[in-house]
Amino acid sequence: VYNHMLLPTVFKSIEEEYHHLKEHVQVWDVSVQREIEIRGKDSSKLVQLMTSRDLSKTKIGKCYYSPLIDNKGNLVNDPVLFKLKENLWRISIADSDVMLFAKGLAIGGSFDVEIYESKVNTLGIQGPKSQKLMEKVFGKKITELKFFNFDYYNFQGVKHMVSKTGFSKQTGYEIHIENIESGLKLYDHLFDLGKEFNVKPGCPNIIERIESGLLSYGNDMDNQNNPYECGFDKYVNLDSSINFLGKDSLKKIKAEGIKRKLMGVKIDINEINLTKEEILYNEEGKEIGFLRSAIFSPTFNKVIGIALVDKPYFKESESFKIIINGKTSVGKVCNLPFV
Amino acid sequence: VYNHMLLPTVFKSIEEEYHHLKEHVQVWDVSVQREIEIRGKDSSKLVQLMTSRDLSKTKIGKCYYSPLIDNKGNLVNDPVLFKLKENLWRISIADSDVMLFAKGLAIGGSFDVEIYESKVNTLGIQGPKSQKLMEKVFGKKITELKFFNFDYYNFQGVKHMVSKTGFSKQTGYEIHIENIESGLKLYDHLFDLGKEFNVKPGCPNIIERIESGLLSYGNDMDNQNNPYECGFDKYVNLDSSINFLGKDSLKKIKAEGIKRKLMGVKIDINEINLTKEEILYNEEGKEIGFLRSAIFSPTFNKVIGIALVDKPYFKESESFKIIINGKTSVGKVCNLPFV
Repeated sequence: VYNHMLLPTVFKSIEEEYHHLKEHVQVWDVSVQREIEIRGKDSSKLVQLMTSRDLSKTKIGKCYYSPLIDNKGNLVNDPVLFKLKENLWRISIADSDVMLFAKGLAIGGSFDVEIYESKVNTLGIQGPKSQKLMEKVFGKKITELKFFNFDYYNFQGVKHMVSKTGFSKQTGYEIHIENIESGLKLYDHLFDLGKEFNVKPGCPNIIERIESGLLSYGNDMDNQNNPYECGFDKYVNLDSSINFLGKDSLKKIKAEGIKRKLMGVKIDINEINLTKEEILYNEEGKEIGFLRSAIFSPTFNKVIGIALVDKPYFKESESFKIIINGKTSVGKVCNLPFV
Repeated sequence: VYNHMLLPTVFKSIEEEYHHLKEHVQVWDVSVQREIEIRGKDSSKLVQLMTSRDLSKTKIGKCYYSPLIDNKGNLVNDPVLFKLKENLWRISIADSDVMLFAKGLAIGGSFDVEIYESKVNTLGIQGPKSQKLMEKVFGKKITELKFFNFDYYNFQGVKHMVSKTGFSKQTGYEIHIENIESGLKLYDHLFDLGKEFNVKPGCPNIIERIESGLLSYGNDMDNQNNPYECGFDKYVNLDSSINFLGKDSLKKIKAEGIKRKLMGVKIDINEINLTKEEILYNEEGKEIGFLRSAIFSPTFNKVIGIALVDKPYFKESESFKIIINGKTSVGKVCNLPFV
């Protein structure tokens, strides 16, 4: 369950789909990435207020990965923003009710905006052969679409918004479907034309996303974490003249330095079934952090994960111990991404 | 998944647990009912702003079922409010991120408040024998606790907040556990002492809650519905001098009359597995509503459910047709609750 909707987590096996995603192309139903629209005179002001990223030079047709921040400097979500028009933004959200936060801000601050969940359901087309498949479906023009740009493309007479985005590092696209009837036809068409590229249904793959260092809001970080702890430094523009929530808090956090950070970890075990945060200990048995996501990686032939690690332990090669199901294992901290 | 956490939906069988809940006593882990606290000088003003229920005469020690409303007059959540102190409210929420909405409002409107998720995990003690079990655990004093009141009771030297509330109509309590160590002991203790009352683990039971007309936010209604459509008329105080979001919208809705309403339905079938909204049709094949929750009821020996029914069909005994898995069945609209 993600944004109050169901998201598949596996079709056959996570490992099989991991290898497939890195070699071929997959079609993902990622409708759970709900898209919130903010429209109206004050829409840009409100969207800017919510994110630490400087949106002053943003352009229509471009996508912006933008941490949303509250007044304490903590994360509310980490969506991709789409600038559809001058006064129309779309926010493709991770798992928290951004619409309610935006509505609260807009009502409380008397912003002249309309905020609503748009009737968009998104298909992810991910994997190294995604461009070939998309070209076959939408024509040569789509090969010109650049990373984190979007445009509109025809399929059997219906225009679909397509962005070169997605929750994998294997290159890919997202088709933001508003016309469901056409979308269903398109879905079937993708599988028909995709046969030669070995297309399969898929979903965000936990091995691939951890290896790639793609953080998951609600798993790796939440409203208790600030963007510096998540390595989002480049999305925090403290020096610009823009006004956003938590700016003063973030200035203070930056000046003092963070006390913990999301890091990669490699653990010398071959399987894990993480159902809650697990504590990391140093040699002396002191708690030095928490493991928040983890999975066996065929690439590293051990378990890899994402952990919130305390200062001064959040550095490459730091050793730790972890107790899982009563058994103590050892591991090392590393930088993200893994690959 | 409920409020980003796991909630059990069944232990053995829904029907077996339904009968048990109506005869004995169950202990529910309903920690998913996250509790948001709003503290500070403007806390009462902010909480009042969010709900259509008149809180001007509220008292410390009492609980208030209160629809939260946005500026359009639509529901944001339907929590129980606990007035802990003059400037400290606790909001036990249904499945939407109320904290983000409250934070947005507070930041936007410059309210002098602190808003946070409190470290509370709630146990439900539900069923006709709940009072006897609670008395055995906490002593005679707890039998004086009235419906929708709360107080603090000792268990092995630790104080626990207990309210006479819960998501069933079989009478019951909720223990709001802040001291986890003591809470775990209490959990075991409830099962030890509860043997003579045939205590079992349980969870909100869909048969019991539909029969009792207990609505579920996110299933029966959401941010597209107003409180009048949900039968929450008595929690909308338009005539009072209080100021809350959506008051003008709700005045307009009330004056014009609602166009659809959540109603009970009885369907002449013996089983159903509802995975999405299903359309209700009248005799002529016109769409007259949507079925949103449904389950087989042993009491009525047919499927019962909750449906959003259009005007003028939202009245007792109105007939409808419904197509499930290609098979047409008939049913009748009825008032809530069923029993």
